[in-house]
Amino acid sequence: MNYPTTIKILIDCFKKLPGIGEKTAERLALSTLSLDDEVLKNFSLSIGSIKEKIKRCDVCNNFTEEDTCLICQDKTRNLDTICVVEEPKNIILFEKMGSYHGLYHVLDGLISPLDGINPEDINISTLIDRVKKNKINEIIIAVKPSIEGETTALYITKILEGTGVKITKIAHGIPLGADMDYIDSLTLEMALEDRKEVS
Amino acid sequence: MNYPTTIKILIDCFKKLPGIGEKTAERLALSTLSLDDEVLKNFSLSIGSIKEKIKRCDVCNNFTEEDTCLICQDKTRNLDTICVVEEPKNIILFEKMGSYHGLYHVLDGLISPLDGINPEDINISTLIDRVKKNKINEIIIAVKPSIEGETTALYITKILEGTGVKITKIAHGIPLGADMDYIDSLTLEMALEDRKEVS
Repeated sequence: MNYPTTIKILIDCFKKLPGIGEKTAERLALSTLSLDDEVLKNFSLSIGSIKEKIKRCDVCNNFTEEDTCLICQDKTRNLDTICVVEEPKNIILFEKMGSYHGLYHVLDGLISPLDGINPEDINISTLIDRVKKNKINEIIIAVKPSIEGETTALYITKILEGTGVKITKIAHGIPLGADMDYIDSLTLEMALEDRKEVS
Repeated sequence: MNYPTTIKILIDCFKKLPGIGEKTAERLALSTLSLDDEVLKNFSLSIGSIKEKIKRCDVCNNFTEEDTCLICQDKTRNLDTICVVEEPKNIILFEKMGSYHGLYHVLDGLISPLDGINPEDINISTLIDRVKKNKINEIIIAVKPSIEGETTALYITKILEGTGVKITKIAHGIPLGADMDYIDSLTLEMALEDRKEVS
């Protein structure tokens, strides 16, 4: 004897999600029994249609339900600035911050020769195309500080050499509110390197 | 700018599940995009139909997709023993253990006068009916050791007084492999009280 089939299937589905083990999957599956009918209907519909509804923007590779995402469609933004990020969800972080008004470009990965991920495996060629076809002033590289991130930034800088586009990288350093005791030495090194004069 | 509607709806649905906050909901919703079509279909179908498919057994109140659950239908079990549990999922625990072959009865809660939960609010009357209508030898009360659990056990014992049914309670004590340093004093007290002669 085990759970009835429908519950068993649902537990197995939850277990497919990252970080969800047997016990949590069981708890989540059983908890759906106490959700409102309306929520269950939306839950079912959105899970069932997500892959078919969510496409990638044909310009910047962001998530979108139309061919071109709402950001790329918005002609009031700074069309001459592109912020390069690793994943679509990074865009949300920038948009929540609210002070960036340029465009984006989603790489869908970072160059990592050790893992066999080469420049042609991520979305870099479309970035070059965008730079060639549009009047781009600045490319801000906003990937995580790691060997892969640095390699990717370096590659993009090199391949765009001579196009006249200014290429910048967001600052790496001590995060706001951090306790100095818990800062790792690599972060400290980056923060020291990027030090600014107190004005 | 935020996530496309379908992703936003899915994040909101995940947030309705217990223990899932904004960040986790976001991570889970985005991860569905990389699930197989087959998994997504099953996920959607099972969530959409769970409340309609999963009923309670008309005998023991366990989860079931038929009128009577598979355990109550199984005439090879010990039909004269009923194990009383708080929730349907407790049954799975017993079944996984494998050494209990009697029937079950799901209370759907424990008596808790402080929270306004009285005997008539949980599934006790049907237990009395089962005892009256069937030849029951033993009722094993397997609820968690707590004031509510003890109150419920006491109430059931009292109301079945004179029916000749033997009423037992699973032992509370030190769990296997536990470090004595971390045992709370209430558990220790119960373990001391329930001590057995070393044979």
